[in-house]
Amino acid sequence: MPFYTFYSTENALTADQKAHVAEEITRIHVAHTGAPSRYVRVLFQEATAENCYTGGKVADVAMIRGIIRAGRSAETKETLLRDLWELLQTVTGLSDDELLVSVQENPARNAMEGGEVLPEPGAEADWLAHH
Amino acid sequence: MPFYTFYSTENALTADQKAHVAEEITRIHVAHTGAPSRYVRVLFQEATAENCYTGGKVADVAMIRGIIRAGRSAETKETLLRDLWELLQTVTGLSDDELLVSVQENPARNAMEGGEVLPEPGAEADWLAHH
Amino acid sequence: MPFYTFYSTENALTADQKAHVAEEITRIHVAHTGAPSRYVRVLFQEATAENCYTGGKVADVAMIRGIIRAGRSAETKETLLRDLWELLQTVTGLSDDELLVSVQENPARNAMEGGEVLPEPGAEADWLAHH
Repeated sequence: MPFYTFYSTENALTADQKAHVAEEITRIHVAHTGAPSRYVRVLFQEATAENCYTGGKVADVAMIRGIIRAGRSAETKETLLRDLWELLQTVTGLSDDELLVSVQENPARNAMEGGEVLPEPGAEADWLAHH
Repeated sequence: MPFYTFYSTENALTADQKAHVAEEITRIHVAHTGAPSRYVRVLFQEATAENCYTGGKVADVAMIRGIIRAGRSAETKETLLRDLWELLQTVTGLSDDELLVSVQENPARNAMEGGEVLPEPGAEADWLAHH
Repeated sequence: MPFYTFYSTENALTADQKAHVAEEITRIHVAHTGAPSRYVRVLFQEATAENCYTGGKVADVAMIRGIIRAGRSAETKETLLRDLWELLQTVTGLSDDELLVSVQENPARNAMEGGEVLPEPGAEADWLAHH
């Protein structure tokens, strides 16, 4: 399920930087949630400058939005957000007002992966034994 | 409300395949939910290979994500996910590890369509009578 | 947190219209929620005609989807949806059946902005005092 989209203006990142960011988002997600890395997806979505606005004005922006399985603890989510924030700021060099990091939670039963509907938190071992 | 996005790498589908997939997603959604087909939206979003990562590495991926009205039964959602999965696998020829299908649920009152805020499940008849 | 995506087919809006829409979405969001305008993001995402389907057929479509902080009242959300609808219809000239407006709600603690996890509704004053 974990599906991260990295939004930025065009050419904000080089191909090497994207590869680094994808590795780091994956590492951070796995470290905090214990999810198998092979289910962590990262998509980069770039927009031309005229398609990005903040406060009603054209502005540089970089955002990471993850859709993750519901049920992670508040502590897990906070450390996840903070590590993603640090990554986003380091790689883009943008200021605090130009960044946004968020996760949307989706119940396990609302997603299918590896050919099966996902297990609820706590039931992963049985599920993974079948994959 | 039903709004499906089909994510893939560039040129994964021909224009004919997209038309087929859009018809099939619409047919599947209508069959399982009873929603009028004219409210089922499908958007295809393609990314270059360097913008798609799984497990931190560049990888082919195909995903369907739907945003649907909250309140469908677990059985409805599971059959919806399974039929979408089969469609996704058939049309892309990708393996189980390269696919992801999910739905996000959104309360009826959080969307407007046909000029009106959507009805709660069970109140559709009155609503449709006005459209 | 407020993050709006405006979906349309290519060239549906000129650059000037996009600037107007971004200003208006920002104004509407601030008017109904009291959020600081500098946190309102608007992204325009355009698709080729062959990538947009309604009811299984290629069709023009224009949609606004916002991800907003959970906890707004039903009245706030309804007036927000109605004002966004009017904006969308005015700027695109499309008919009721070609438009969709929705908001997805996300809990404050699931997002980071300005370097901090967002405050719950009602705790904004303390939070803003630190930014």
